[in-house]
Amino acid sequence: MSTPIRAGIVGATGYTGFELVRLLSAHPHVELAFAVSRRDAGKSLGELYPTPLDVPLQAPDEVDPRSADVLFLCLPHGTAQEWTRRGLEAGAVVIDLSADHRLRDPATYRRWYGLEHAAPHLLSEAVYGLTEWNREALRSARLIANPGCYPTSILLALGPLLKTGLLEEATVIADSKSGVSGAGRSPKVSSLFVEVNENLKPYNIGHLHRHVAEIEQEFAVLGGSRAPANLIFSPHLLPVSRGILSTIYVPWPVGWQEGALRALYAETYAHEPFIWLLPPGQTATLAHTVHTNRCAISLHPVPDQGQLIIVSTIDNLVKGAAGQAVQNMNVRFGLDETAGLT
Amino acid sequence: MSTPIRAGIVGATGYTGFELVRLLSAHPHVELAFAVSRRDAGKSLGELYPTPLDVPLQAPDEVDPRSADVLFLCLPHGTAQEWTRRGLEAGAVVIDLSADHRLRDPATYRRWYGLEHAAPHLLSEAVYGLTEWNREALRSARLIANPGCYPTSILLALGPLLKTGLLEEATVIADSKSGVSGAGRSPKVSSLFVEVNENLKPYNIGHLHRHVAEIEQEFAVLGGSRAPANLIFSPHLLPVSRGILSTIYVPWPVGWQEGALRALYAETYAHEPFIWLLPPGQTATLAHTVHTNRCAISLHPVPDQGQLIIVSTIDNLVKGAAGQAVQNMNVRFGLDETAGLT
Amino acid sequence: MSTPIRAGIVGATGYTGFELVRLLSAHPHVELAFAVSRRDAGKSLGELYPTPLDVPLQAPDEVDPRSADVLFLCLPHGTAQEWTRRGLEAGAVVIDLSADHRLRDPATYRRWYGLEHAAPHLLSEAVYGLTEWNREALRSARLIANPGCYPTSILLALGPLLKTGLLEEATVIADSKSGVSGAGRSPKVSSLFVEVNENLKPYNIGHLHRHVAEIEQEFAVLGGSRAPANLIFSPHLLPVSRGILSTIYVPWPVGWQEGALRALYAETYAHEPFIWLLPPGQTATLAHTVHTNRCAISLHPVPDQGQLIIVSTIDNLVKGAAGQAVQNMNVRFGLDETAGLT
Amino acid sequence: MSTPIRAGIVGATGYTGFELVRLLSAHPHVELAFAVSRRDAGKSLGELYPTPLDVPLQAPDEVDPRSADVLFLCLPHGTAQEWTRRGLEAGAVVIDLSADHRLRDPATYRRWYGLEHAAPHLLSEAVYGLTEWNREALRSARLIANPGCYPTSILLALGPLLKTGLLEEATVIADSKSGVSGAGRSPKVSSLFVEVNENLKPYNIGHLHRHVAEIEQEFAVLGGSRAPANLIFSPHLLPVSRGILSTIYVPWPVGWQEGALRALYAETYAHEPFIWLLPPGQTATLAHTVHTNRCAISLHPVPDQGQLIIVSTIDNLVKGAAGQAVQNMNVRFGLDETAGLT
Repeated sequence: MSTPIRAGIVGATGYTGFELVRLLSAHPHVELAFAVSRRDAGKSLGELYPTPLDVPLQAPDEVDPRSADVLFLCLPHGTAQEWTRRGLEAGAVVIDLSADHRLRDPATYRRWYGLEHAAPHLLSEAVYGLTEWNREALRSARLIANPGCYPTSILLALGPLLKTGLLEEATVIADSKSGVSGAGRSPKVSSLFVEVNENLKPYNIGHLHRHVAEIEQEFAVLGGSRAPANLIFSPHLLPVSRGILSTIYVPWPVGWQEGALRALYAETYAHEPFIWLLPPGQTATLAHTVHTNRCAISLHPVPDQGQLIIVSTIDNLVKGAAGQAVQNMNVRFGLDETAGLT
Repeated sequence: MSTPIRAGIVGATGYTGFELVRLLSAHPHVELAFAVSRRDAGKSLGELYPTPLDVPLQAPDEVDPRSADVLFLCLPHGTAQEWTRRGLEAGAVVIDLSADHRLRDPATYRRWYGLEHAAPHLLSEAVYGLTEWNREALRSARLIANPGCYPTSILLALGPLLKTGLLEEATVIADSKSGVSGAGRSPKVSSLFVEVNENLKPYNIGHLHRHVAEIEQEFAVLGGSRAPANLIFSPHLLPVSRGILSTIYVPWPVGWQEGALRALYAETYAHEPFIWLLPPGQTATLAHTVHTNRCAISLHPVPDQGQLIIVSTIDNLVKGAAGQAVQNMNVRFGLDETAGLT
Repeated sequence: MSTPIRAGIVGATGYTGFELVRLLSAHPHVELAFAVSRRDAGKSLGELYPTPLDVPLQAPDEVDPRSADVLFLCLPHGTAQEWTRRGLEAGAVVIDLSADHRLRDPATYRRWYGLEHAAPHLLSEAVYGLTEWNREALRSARLIANPGCYPTSILLALGPLLKTGLLEEATVIADSKSGVSGAGRSPKVSSLFVEVNENLKPYNIGHLHRHVAEIEQEFAVLGGSRAPANLIFSPHLLPVSRGILSTIYVPWPVGWQEGALRALYAETYAHEPFIWLLPPGQTATLAHTVHTNRCAISLHPVPDQGQLIIVSTIDNLVKGAAGQAVQNMNVRFGLDETAGLT
Repeated sequence: MSTPIRAGIVGATGYTGFELVRLLSAHPHVELAFAVSRRDAGKSLGELYPTPLDVPLQAPDEVDPRSADVLFLCLPHGTAQEWTRRGLEAGAVVIDLSADHRLRDPATYRRWYGLEHAAPHLLSEAVYGLTEWNREALRSARLIANPGCYPTSILLALGPLLKTGLLEEATVIADSKSGVSGAGRSPKVSSLFVEVNENLKPYNIGHLHRHVAEIEQEFAVLGGSRAPANLIFSPHLLPVSRGILSTIYVPWPVGWQEGALRALYAETYAHEPFIWLLPPGQTATLAHTVHTNRCAISLHPVPDQGQLIIVSTIDNLVKGAAGQAVQNMNVRFGLDETAGLT
């Protein structure tokens, strides 16, 4: 690569933004064009984190999106739409790590986020950045909607089954457990050390919520006419900093043998650099994937009881956010997909 | 109580044994007769734990079971049988916290524990000490089989449904998460701080194992002819010292309304001092029950998707072991059931 | 006790306030008169914490201080002065857990807290509630200034040396480590799980600060004309919820033997129910004291290198705050000093 | 580098050995020749750790030291001597991460390790691998004694003062706190999660021990005739997986101003890639250095009280062990010193 890709980051001081700065700073083909922080403009990143990365933080109106080839948005939902417009107008590729372009239907967006979307036409244009499943569309995308962390862990675990129609009409139960960084760096009581430590806290149990809408949308995309009927999604807050582990229960596909199921997964993911399919007898744990862009998947067949259990783990800040964003950038710009990620 | 109950503890130096020493030392109606430790005989408990309790540890052959009214066995399975014989012959009530008397069928015991039981007739005599469900039988028991920690958390959560036949033919999924003290104090790599910390580790996923045999046995006892068909049980090792949280998925009982289900639980557990039924909108967490003998239960109905989710938490060392043992002793000796437990 | 002591708590929803509610609710001679929370008035404590304690929270102007015999103030400094006035006027004993009455000199108070004290005469009247050292004065106190958590751990460790003049002109180095609950329940980035977990963070190293002023004041009180010259105090934030451990370095007292020093400590604290002097060869750890009102102290002589090292631990929320407040109440009202604390 | 350096690792399955495998596997100029594990020969590293690194473990007599250019020994002390002999005879450079070649005097070795050294002449030949201070000697070393983790954190913090003679006759107090991986992966009660979690445990307080011998030896090397008189070293076990933080107290150098001291450090370490000198107002924390080969140092002058406080942090497995070993290899083989370490 003779000319580096110039990357701008908006929202550089949250956990996701900082992870992205770290990844891009070490990326062999990227040059950091700017890092925006509304609240901390004028400071250096080293004043906010114990890092030697000496990145100046700029105010939103101090930067020119035209100085970036790619714009990463690490913003709360609602606030990414204006930056998307600015980025696209400036000719940059926009990779939106917020939830603002994940749902394709403006009405669904309104329902879950309580906002009228400012540019509904972009909802249908945006490419959903679950890299392993949308690689072709990503190569020419102007706007990439980076998936949520929970959806990434669940969709990668179920992709082979969905594509093959094996979850048709199924009720899928996803019992997910996430580290605290998923809640962001905004100070709130529920993220305090004393509240989380030595505790395990299920939340939104039995409720439909935003991640369910995103996952069910992709169930329909991947499963087509043979999509699952339902998702029961139970998130739990774990006393760890990073990582998501999903324990997923689906009905055993009638007529299938264990070997055939394992072969389906092996073939589907044979050439994927970041999917780590564990051999029989091993179980995915958080330690398999934290601080990496990998997704580890283990299959646990219980055909006698009519169940297949799948365990998947990712690092919520890497494959669940900043790492997958870089992976999507690599695909979009024709780089080695693993550049800066190993 | 004019005369205190004399309690002997065998296996006083594991986490369960030490918890029992703590509880009994503060119990208003109990006097500690002896504490046995094969390995640490001759030492004081204060040499093994940071505790001011100055309890001498004695060798097995140094103590006379006749000096105890009740004998608590905190031993590995297999080794509790000989002590049970000694205790019963000496006229003591035996409360066995090991797994040696939980299964009623000698063949099932052999299958799961790989041993021929030394006194199969005691398997049918032993009363399963899930206090809330077996109180009457406990009042006159000679031998009490204290339940396992996972079974306690799952059976208390499902008791009202089982008794009413609402789980007939159901597949029950219990996604359970446990603190590390459940693995005991024997040094092994998998319990080391560095292995557990910042990790979440599912184990035995999709396997039948000992706790499943125990739970399914009690499903049959409580559910009778209308018992569930299956239990899918997925334990996970949490990076916390204490506590079990079970997230349980069962089919929504056809024809029932949420209000009626809540009323069923409220009535069933109306007078139970240690069952804490949370109001709608609250979710049980580990913090609700650690360091107490309580079991917290929250109901999360999803009738539209045909599911009922139940979350239950206990402290594995208290309600899941030593606390329930004391509760059973209280019942057996006609004491206030909460004595020494609040 | 025929008539219970009526206790009011102001500021019941912070970590210290909640700990106090827990202790007083289980105290055999106390009745909770009211619990005040400006922010959460109208709620129950059970809405803020996972607790079955169903304590209603009231607004400041809803309660009548005359309904309390003792008023506990768990407030930020600055705001406790007005409540102190109200409590004293109503005839209640006031136990102030804030820093508002710990410093005796109004100028020192102004210097460290940046405020003019509203009632400087109360600074000289207030009795410093380090129970073990001020028991006599506490018996008739109207206003008790409950000590800070760090000062409690350091002063109890050094008391015997100070009283005997053995630290005359010494430089004392206290390297202290504290759990996160000491920073309170107000949400701030520095107390978030992700910031504290897997980290150790020294703060205010080499700076004089408020706790130093408090400790040096008490050095002068206990040491009189033979007080130490200096205190070097280095606090560190530990990834634990509770507990303070201070490792204290002082010059070896010239001419003393180890046995004589140990005897000095043993005699000084011989009848203290909450001071736990460890035998030679044992070292105080957090686990010795968390969830108790004890202070554990171990002595580590290094006479050949001219040093004495003392390790002391307390639970910052118990002996370092709420527990010592209850202990002081017990002394003040002529109760058994350990009531409600074991 | 056309020809990669062939590296052999002996003792590849402990925490240090595994860290070394990770570092070397990603090193651009190294090829892993073999990995030896006496206990786990025949297995793959992936069976012991959640890693995709598919490294076969070989028995000691299966490997030929001549197939390696450099031999890393991650062994318990005592057992590294035989491998050192084998490696040197085969013509390999030996980097010994055990304590077997750190002490130069056979009598001192015998005193602290209770063993007669098998090759006392190697004690004087071995170069102490504190890279920043011994770089020249390392370039031609046959045998490199990699420093202990505590000594690394303390010596790097004090190096500039020692070299300038500013600690002449001083008593140095090092209050050090270490993560649990420093205790190794051998299962023992004191390293269990439940023992370490929510605890802080000082150990060997006031005792002379092996690390003191090593540090005092290097005090003499760096300080020469103006070395410190004493080291008081207090290690504490922290509830974190990785990292060492040392809070070090030394007398303020008479006649020096803060600016001059800071300049001394800045100049000494101006060109060091792994020494991170923090600016005034910032304090080193574990988070500054975990998972890196850096040593972070912050200076906290208290001249009015006659003290200088220095805080230093490293990752005990990286700069305190495997990372520094790689750094030493880089120096020894003429590579970029940071290769494989950033």
